[in-house]
Amino acid sequence: MSDFSVVDLICAKRDGQALGPDEITWFIDGYTNGRIPDEQASALLMAIYFQAMEPDELAVWTQAMIDSGERLDLSGLEHPTVDKHSTGGVGDKVSLVLAPLMAACGAAVPQLSGRGLGHSGGTLDKLEAIAGWRASLSNAEILSQLADVGAVICAAGAGLAPADRRIYALRDVTGTVPSIPLIASSIMSKKIAEGTSALVLDVKVGSGAFMKTHALARQLAEAMVTLGEAHGVRTAALLTGMDTVLGRTAGNALEVRESIETLAGGGPDDLVEVTLALAREMAELADLGADPADVLASGAAMDVWRAMIAAQGGDPDDDLPWASIVETVNAPADGVLGRLDALAVGIAAWRLGAGRARKEDPVSPTAGVVCRAVEGEPVRAGEPLLELHTDDESLLPGALAALEGGFTVVAEAGAPRPLILDRVTAGGRA
Amino acid sequence: MSDFSVVDLICAKRDGQALGPDEITWFIDGYTNGRIPDEQASALLMAIYFQAMEPDELAVWTQAMIDSGERLDLSGLEHPTVDKHSTGGVGDKVSLVLAPLMAACGAAVPQLSGRGLGHSGGTLDKLEAIAGWRASLSNAEILSQLADVGAVICAAGAGLAPADRRIYALRDVTGTVPSIPLIASSIMSKKIAEGTSALVLDVKVGSGAFMKTHALARQLAEAMVTLGEAHGVRTAALLTGMDTVLGRTAGNALEVRESIETLAGGGPDDLVEVTLALAREMAELADLGADPADVLASGAAMDVWRAMIAAQGGDPDDDLPWASIVETVNAPADGVLGRLDALAVGIAAWRLGAGRARKEDPVSPTAGVVCRAVEGEPVRAGEPLLELHTDDESLLPGALAALEGGFTVVAEAGAPRPLILDRVTAGGRA
Repeated sequence: MSDFSVVDLICAKRDGQALGPDEITWFIDGYTNGRIPDEQASALLMAIYFQAMEPDELAVWTQAMIDSGERLDLSGLEHPTVDKHSTGGVGDKVSLVLAPLMAACGAAVPQLSGRGLGHSGGTLDKLEAIAGWRASLSNAEILSQLADVGAVICAAGAGLAPADRRIYALRDVTGTVPSIPLIASSIMSKKIAEGTSALVLDVKVGSGAFMKTHALARQLAEAMVTLGEAHGVRTAALLTGMDTVLGRTAGNALEVRESIETLAGGGPDDLVEVTLALAREMAELADLGADPADVLASGAAMDVWRAMIAAQGGDPDDDLPWASIVETVNAPADGVLGRLDALAVGIAAWRLGAGRARKEDPVSPTAGVVCRAVEGEPVRAGEPLLELHTDDESLLPGALAALEGGFTVVAEAGAPRPLILDRVTAGGRA
Repeated sequence: MSDFSVVDLICAKRDGQALGPDEITWFIDGYTNGRIPDEQASALLMAIYFQAMEPDELAVWTQAMIDSGERLDLSGLEHPTVDKHSTGGVGDKVSLVLAPLMAACGAAVPQLSGRGLGHSGGTLDKLEAIAGWRASLSNAEILSQLADVGAVICAAGAGLAPADRRIYALRDVTGTVPSIPLIASSIMSKKIAEGTSALVLDVKVGSGAFMKTHALARQLAEAMVTLGEAHGVRTAALLTGMDTVLGRTAGNALEVRESIETLAGGGPDDLVEVTLALAREMAELADLGADPADVLASGAAMDVWRAMIAAQGGDPDDDLPWASIVETVNAPADGVLGRLDALAVGIAAWRLGAGRARKEDPVSPTAGVVCRAVEGEPVRAGEPLLELHTDDESLLPGALAALEGGFTVVAEAGAPRPLILDRVTAGGRA
């Protein structure tokens, strides 16, 4: 491999030039192997924050991250593989419904996931509320579960894109997280290494999402769709609203319960709408004949859910735990809930114990927020709007503070906010 | 001292906000003490590269760098203190003439200097070509020499602005050297800590200078003049041309010889012009009555030179060393030397051994370039344009390569380039 000067690379990017393929490969390899020190890598990341990357550059950068580790080979599976990734939101339990649903539609769903950080929940944290369920599987276990059950939600192993782990840890302490190419390469390197043939991205937009504006979310979606397609993964993205909570719960066991209701044919309308919209995209990309709405109604998705939980040591009949303390926030007046801010609810749930500030912190399975009313629903003065669930009374004041100004009660309901905001597909496809 | 989050500071600067005084002081202190790691500091420096600093911010940043070490107290001296700093160029031996000249005009000149790096020479490297001369003096020696001789040129001690040493080392490896506020704070923290009451800055502009354009050089000059005045140092700046070599030599002993010629009343016109222009600024800032041109002509500056060299162990009558190998570059045609590029000559001298690539490398006292013709002078085909001096024949090809395209021979001389390009003084002064 050629040898370059890191300072030259930093200066080139700082001055807005594109880095060459050999330079990028040399850098990612050198940083992953510890040859290039953190202080030079962080300077380059900050330069990338300001100068971004061209599509070709980003494709090479992502490839180098994939090449830093193993890539799962799912080609021996009988069913077409398709996965979904969400950029994260408040109450976003879509994966819990969608993975079994798509398996019931005839796909194999290899959903290798992460944990939550800050106000945004993590799929693994939610499932760990189920007694006995384990997140860590070997590659052999993943493959056999995909073959037998059709869906697996588990932790991404350390062998997938180790460069991403190192780069993400550095971004986290150097103010270089919110860079579109760095986010896109982080997500896509792991998803491509996971070995799925098709991928639908749920790019959340709004106060409770990482992307606060439609324009930025669309940029990220386009970058990720381009990257997926460049690496042979059929990729599409939906932009979906995250200004308010998805469903009526935010918190681990609370969200598992709501997901099970949805798999049983109930569940909140907004959760069902987003889940089915993503399911239709996945069915199209994976060329599945089934209509996800029919499959959900049939109960077949619930059967896969039970098998999927059981295969990972969980008890599908587990009575999920409840918090010992429930405090309510009551409506200040009669009227309609005008706005219920996703970020306020997400921070409240986090402060109640449902989330973590650092990745090594534990989370509470029971803590969280239940919305007794959602946007557009009538409320009466003095009656509960929100329930705060926790096992630690000392956490209530912080959660209550987070909710101050986080909702409005108005005289008349406004127009409901649209949920599905935009759709991004590869240039060559409809 | 308050405790802040480094990530918050980085993000604030990244997003174009000004950092508060407590934040800046906390950061500089934390980085100097090793509490804040390199990777976070380099991310902040790159964010500063892109977002710069406001004048108030920069003043606090510089104050914190000064406060990281000691500040010399020169207030007990009988004579007014005044110093000069140059941003560096090719053949820039002005300090060697100017320090004794200003002492002869009645000032005390505490010129604490650095070494050369790359194509740009260093004052200490030049003086070390004199047998016995030593650059390292204690604070007590500096004070007594200022009282006795009136001028001292020596190494800035480790006690002055140690934060600058740490930050500069990091900038050097992270592509964050060329940032106006970071350059200004680096220079001015050391000069203010040195304890001078007045300071003239020689900001070089052109191919052989760090600042390639008038606009950037003026920005830097304004930032430094503002900083100096904010810290109670009467400060002015001249922008002077550095598109071609200053004088006729670039190299250590070669430049000392040319300086001695100038102190003796001879020397090249351009060197005399720049030296006297700076001397007049210094005389004005320090309220000296003397006319520097008269003092230079009187021979009094030469007397100070001899005393200054002797006080630091040097022999003022030393026969300076000569290189064992002298190769010439000859004129390709009859005509006039149209352009002689400072950077090309600087790199050639560096490659011949006069300069260093890393700060721990040694330099050759004898190596360098002598210009047998300077811009605008007639040349004849086959006759020497340049002499390359070195003790290592293997260095000649690299030096010759650096000079390729570095000069032109034309039919008629163009207008001479102006040397004194601009002047920057504090708002309140003429």
